[in-house]
Amino acid sequence: MNNINDEYYMGLALDMAERAQGQTGINPVVGAVVVKDGELVGVGTHLKRGTPHAEVHALNMAGSRAEGSTVYVSLEPCSHYGITPPCSERLINEKVARVVVACEDPNPQVAGRGIEMLRNSGIEVAVGVLRERALQLNKKFIKYITTGLPYITIKTASTLDGKIASKSGDSKWISNESAREIVHSMRHRHQGIMVGVGTIVADDPQLTTRLAVPGISPVRIVVDSSLRIPDDSNVLTDGLAQTILLTTTKANESRAAALQERGIQIVFCGDGPEVDLQQAMKKLGELGISSILVEGGGRMNGAILQNALADEIVLFLAPKLIGGLDAPGSFMFEGYELMKDAITLQNLVVEQIGDNICVSGKPIYSA
Amino acid sequence: MNNINDEYYMGLALDMAERAQGQTGINPVVGAVVVKDGELVGVGTHLKRGTPHAEVHALNMAGSRAEGSTVYVSLEPCSHYGITPPCSERLINEKVARVVVACEDPNPQVAGRGIEMLRNSGIEVAVGVLRERALQLNKKFIKYITTGLPYITIKTASTLDGKIASKSGDSKWISNESAREIVHSMRHRHQGIMVGVGTIVADDPQLTTRLAVPGISPVRIVVDSSLRIPDDSNVLTDGLAQTILLTTTKANESRAAALQERGIQIVFCGDGPEVDLQQAMKKLGELGISSILVEGGGRMNGAILQNALADEIVLFLAPKLIGGLDAPGSFMFEGYELMKDAITLQNLVVEQIGDNICVSGKPIYSA
Repeated sequence: MNNINDEYYMGLALDMAERAQGQTGINPVVGAVVVKDGELVGVGTHLKRGTPHAEVHALNMAGSRAEGSTVYVSLEPCSHYGITPPCSERLINEKVARVVVACEDPNPQVAGRGIEMLRNSGIEVAVGVLRERALQLNKKFIKYITTGLPYITIKTASTLDGKIASKSGDSKWISNESAREIVHSMRHRHQGIMVGVGTIVADDPQLTTRLAVPGISPVRIVVDSSLRIPDDSNVLTDGLAQTILLTTTKANESRAAALQERGIQIVFCGDGPEVDLQQAMKKLGELGISSILVEGGGRMNGAILQNALADEIVLFLAPKLIGGLDAPGSFMFEGYELMKDAITLQNLVVEQIGDNICVSGKPIYSA
Repeated sequence: MNNINDEYYMGLALDMAERAQGQTGINPVVGAVVVKDGELVGVGTHLKRGTPHAEVHALNMAGSRAEGSTVYVSLEPCSHYGITPPCSERLINEKVARVVVACEDPNPQVAGRGIEMLRNSGIEVAVGVLRERALQLNKKFIKYITTGLPYITIKTASTLDGKIASKSGDSKWISNESAREIVHSMRHRHQGIMVGVGTIVADDPQLTTRLAVPGISPVRIVVDSSLRIPDDSNVLTDGLAQTILLTTTKANESRAAALQERGIQIVFCGDGPEVDLQQAMKKLGELGISSILVEGGGRMNGAILQNALADEIVLFLAPKLIGGLDAPGSFMFEGYELMKDAITLQNLVVEQIGDNICVSGKPIYSA
């Protein structure tokens, strides 16, 4: 454990990147570590879109010791002039000896060119150290930069028999306090949070991030095909975060205008009776929302799945059996005829959180 | 890790006891280790009802070195003449110096008297070393010896949305191969296996224990209120294990007689339209069946729960979402109005088994 090697330093770069999740917007999280003659001489992490990249912070800290150093960076250094100048150029100018990269930048504007630039300047480059962890950390960024669509996480909590409430609708409580804390950490790490208007009507939630330390609240996205959201609901009045309503062109025009006048953004998704979720994701992506946490009920979860839109499912299971043949399920959708066609979670992670179980993975849609 | 102390030796006693699970019938599993002057000098484990207890095997191996030794035994040495003479007497006669016991024997015929006998003879006795593990290992024995009722384990496998088959009835496959191997290990460790006659009609299973090494097959118990079990079904014809049919006094008499003539044991449980499961468990206990693995479907699982009969639930979850509002669930029963009244699993254990999740625990019936 903790042998001093490339993984040891890259691990620190990733640890730093991890802490910045949720604050970089559509940008990736990246950490960098500079090591010279066996000593840590610089650390840095990208903090926010438009501000310096991780390498810049770390090289600034290293100062003249950057020359001849090894720089560990959790994502390929950029090769292009974006909002900031290319990091590869900076590394070359600093005359670093070696660069260790966890994974290539999937951004089509980089995609290997950063590594190429470094190699062409005689810098030794190693690629792939802790690659899987790095890819995992930037999965939202990777989806968005390669498709323009937000990364969708469904979060739900059910009993072991797959129910999110009793037959009478009671759901207090399924998940435990630790699980609910984790949910707030997830909100911090997503740019948007999505619910159906039914949830707003029933519970009037704030949908903000509430943690023991300050957190970032996501943009609140309410699926509301008929714009029946109550005027006095928290998400419209509390000003704690931006709110976007997804509706259809069938929605009442004057109602839409009245809401827009109050500063509420309305996105029209299709002309059907229900919000076209495929269109919705495309438009939300265009609005710069690169990740969305879906906290809907069984019907919304089912619709998201039926449209093959979810990239990740995080399911909290309480060790309870509530029964009730008509009690609402966690994923209510038409379903498949054969077990082999079921949606299957890949990269499965199972964690016991006190008396709750957290199961997460990437849904693979085979049908 | 592996410090040499009381836990170190008791651990070995328990390791041995564990390996004997499934072969001791209504008897507990017990291991014993004899240590003298810092050396292991005897090991033993109880193998089968009516054969020597663990201490006897271990003391036999130790021979004259038993004198002045410390004996680790995972269950309080017996104090009574049962099928074999009392082990406490043997320990006293051997002049051992110290006895370390994991837990008291809940058998009302012992219940502390063994420890008392030893102490009265001047032997130092320590109680409670690795107690929890020892209690866990003998949970089936403890239930049976204190209530006369078999220990009931429900085993089921569902998708993450709580379905045991698709809406069309397809269930191949939910659990993975490793999970199915574990199920055969569970069969080995239970005296009975219970299914509904519907399972026999649909799948004609053998319900035997099939492992990479030989295992013990449980008594096959089929719930069949109308004795509609097919005459040529495997459980009636293959002779691989005993079969018991549970039915009611309403069942056709000549049909019952014909089955009994074939050597099939029939147990009549009540005079209602359905088998009275409470009565069934009492009668199976009287037949010397101290543990039953229920491998029924959602309805049988639900009935077992509704009768508060299950002592343990082992639920394999596949990372799949199959949907289907009418697809059969893992626990189909009337259920509770309020989440706080839900059956809750205590002593929760969660294990990831490849791409399956194994959740197990003791159901607490609060409603």
